[in-house]
Amino acid sequence: MLGTGRESTVPKILTRFCLLLCLAVLAAAPLPRDAVAAPTVAQFKLANGLAVVVIPDRRTPVVTHMLWYRVGAADEPAGKSGIAHFLEHLMFKGTAKNPAGRFSQRLAAIGGQENAFTSNDYTGYFQRVAREHLAELMEFEADRMTGLVLTDDIIVAERNVILEERNQRIDNEPSARLSEQVAAAQYLSHPYQKPTIGWRHEMETLDREDALTFYKRFYTPDNAVLVVAGDVTPEDVKMLAEATYGKIERHKPIGARTRPQEPPQIAERRVTFADLRVAQPSIQRSYLVPSHTTAKDGEDDALDILGHILGGGSNSRLYRALVMESRVATNAGAWYQGTTLDATRFGLYATPAAGVAPEKVEGAVDAVIAAFVDKGPTVEELERAKSRMIANYVYAQDNQSTLARMYGAALTTGSTVEAVQARPERLRAVTPEQVRDAARRYLDKRHSVTGYLLREAGREEKKS
Amino acid sequence: MLGTGRESTVPKILTRFCLLLCLAVLAAAPLPRDAVAAPTVAQFKLANGLAVVVIPDRRTPVVTHMLWYRVGAADEPAGKSGIAHFLEHLMFKGTAKNPAGRFSQRLAAIGGQENAFTSNDYTGYFQRVAREHLAELMEFEADRMTGLVLTDDIIVAERNVILEERNQRIDNEPSARLSEQVAAAQYLSHPYQKPTIGWRHEMETLDREDALTFYKRFYTPDNAVLVVAGDVTPEDVKMLAEATYGKIERHKPIGARTRPQEPPQIAERRVTFADLRVAQPSIQRSYLVPSHTTAKDGEDDALDILGHILGGGSNSRLYRALVMESRVATNAGAWYQGTTLDATRFGLYATPAAGVAPEKVEGAVDAVIAAFVDKGPTVEELERAKSRMIANYVYAQDNQSTLARMYGAALTTGSTVEAVQARPERLRAVTPEQVRDAARRYLDKRHSVTGYLLREAGREEKKS
Repeated sequence: MLGTGRESTVPKILTRFCLLLCLAVLAAAPLPRDAVAAPTVAQFKLANGLAVVVIPDRRTPVVTHMLWYRVGAADEPAGKSGIAHFLEHLMFKGTAKNPAGRFSQRLAAIGGQENAFTSNDYTGYFQRVAREHLAELMEFEADRMTGLVLTDDIIVAERNVILEERNQRIDNEPSARLSEQVAAAQYLSHPYQKPTIGWRHEMETLDREDALTFYKRFYTPDNAVLVVAGDVTPEDVKMLAEATYGKIERHKPIGARTRPQEPPQIAERRVTFADLRVAQPSIQRSYLVPSHTTAKDGEDDALDILGHILGGGSNSRLYRALVMESRVATNAGAWYQGTTLDATRFGLYATPAAGVAPEKVEGAVDAVIAAFVDKGPTVEELERAKSRMIANYVYAQDNQSTLARMYGAALTTGSTVEAVQARPERLRAVTPEQVRDAARRYLDKRHSVTGYLLREAGREEKKS
Repeated sequence: MLGTGRESTVPKILTRFCLLLCLAVLAAAPLPRDAVAAPTVAQFKLANGLAVVVIPDRRTPVVTHMLWYRVGAADEPAGKSGIAHFLEHLMFKGTAKNPAGRFSQRLAAIGGQENAFTSNDYTGYFQRVAREHLAELMEFEADRMTGLVLTDDIIVAERNVILEERNQRIDNEPSARLSEQVAAAQYLSHPYQKPTIGWRHEMETLDREDALTFYKRFYTPDNAVLVVAGDVTPEDVKMLAEATYGKIERHKPIGARTRPQEPPQIAERRVTFADLRVAQPSIQRSYLVPSHTTAKDGEDDALDILGHILGGGSNSRLYRALVMESRVATNAGAWYQGTTLDATRFGLYATPAAGVAPEKVEGAVDAVIAAFVDKGPTVEELERAKSRMIANYVYAQDNQSTLARMYGAALTTGSTVEAVQARPERLRAVTPEQVRDAARRYLDKRHSVTGYLLREAGREEKKS
């Protein structure tokens, strides 16, 4: 199924995406303030509880259709890590009505694209087709909300696929292995601790019953959000949705998404991973911080801006200080993953220049943070960050699937259409003091994990 | 209820107990090999599944009665940490038949003692009474296996008690807070990660329904082990058990105790906790290692011996090297907590001498380990450790409650009466190579967490 163009998203992907988008916008001229109008978005619910969001976009006769489930890796039963992502793969294995391959083949035949992704908090299925095929597409997607058929042969074969995916994405990538260990050390209790793709020893045990139990529990109309963007009216979508998804019976509610929350983090943690395959050592640090959903008083927006000022691109504080000025590093940056249901992470990273000890680079990172915590951002820095982020937001409006993804991710992580639309306004309202205070409060080492990726010395040497 | 002499055991207690016992035995002369006969232990099951172990001991007309449940903190539902220990407290709150206080008052009136304890794997209730009161005692204990009555008032009041217990044991003890954080960092997935007493924010939410759900699920005859030691015959105990516990209906089996297992631990972790109240910095390290239940080929016995050689008392390698010779530390030792259902920890600790940096002490610890890994134990060291441990075992036979506890803990962590009895034999069979190999294999920093307890500098200073 990897050949059909699907990707399986581990959370970092989102971050990368944001970083890339952000870099792409660097070259763009600042936008006038009135250019930020959000699109007219319609939202409604079907009688069975399915939430629907429609984003009309008449520029081309194309529609983007995304069905999101409010379930991800953090909702998995204990010991079953990877089942959310495994089920995402299995959803391409056919139903009673549409045997394996028919949906994808039909999409290919009509020139459509498809994709799927799993995060800690959501699982989504994406297609893009010419307008006239929307009804047929919805028929297919609605069918697999309840009709999935799995055999043990399918399970065994696809389990090998996800294990190989883990091999490629994590096990053969020392930096990914370190990142996985850093995330595991960041959370002492909350399930964001485990990797979205799953721990290998648990993935190896996932079976047909695990998949079907998870599917039947979480793939229900009132646990899903349908996002349709493109050359359609809300009325069209409502009619089509009722004729397809609307036929699915309402399930009993699956209950609130309450995961174990973190105890106070009081001790600084450090993780060192040494591997023979490491060509280039690197350091990373993450801090436990509020997400868009858990934050109060705009602290999430302040953290988002903080990420841009500290580490968003070559004009950021970290890049200038470490790469351009002291030249202790060849790369440095920061990220904030705000779109999560529960408390999330703010991250920093740097790649030491040849011959520079990671400790020295970490010291340089700490000095940049200390200076920022002391004085906060300059007015120019703050304005530049806001302009970029708002430009970012505006350009996102221009891409149907980015736009659909923005709303889908928000609605499956406890946020709202209104909150997405108010984003530029909220960013504009952030003061320099708020950004400084967010840094002061959250860039606290007691809530942090620092990871070192090192080239492994011989085992004997390491032991002594 | 704390005034009735009950203790609530967090896992460290067991370790402390072993260390104390071990120290007490240091002065004892080596025992002849034939002095190690284990007592004649009878075991049987009632029709409802209750396992019974009887350890006759006719020296005094006293009996020790312990009812153990195969449930502990590691069996708690996600987000409900502390419920196993909370329920242990609540079990003293009375039943429909015996209102609150009656059981304890009656015990006091007949000169009995009582106690209770909770670990990651088991919960136990202990009494010691004159022989003639055993029947009455069993009537009381059997009654509270099913008859517990809880009101919201009881819950609120006793929740305050466990919260205060947490205050005293953990929150006001910087070293306990560090130990809690080190344990949390040791496990990336397994529930031994959380403290037995619970995370405060979760303890605060535990309610009547949580307690009763847990009680009804786990407090069943076939999930319990009755251990009676003292002036009784197996026939007496069988008759009394059938007349009391035997009346309780068999429940449907609660299923295998499968907890999420650890992924491979590949990255060394470090945890630093700084607090203004720290008068004396200290360091500790733990490694993930097999338990008596998970180990193969006697590796658990080798680890147990390793703990004694490296850090059991003032003649151990760590103590001699760090305290007596280089004098970088005022204390140093090691421990192995083998009596657990799943993979457990092997620990080292040291207290730096005044003015000595913890890094220097850690270096000294590492040097001791490196030397041991290189050459293994001397024949004298190995023999001395074995003699002590076997003496230890023999002296335990002399104490009814220690003996009862040994069997109860074994049977609730997946071990057997036979395994307990074969312990001296197994220890004798361990070779120097096995001890060296266990050190080489398991004292691997990639599976370790190193904790530093430091006196906190001012926050400003810490930030810069």
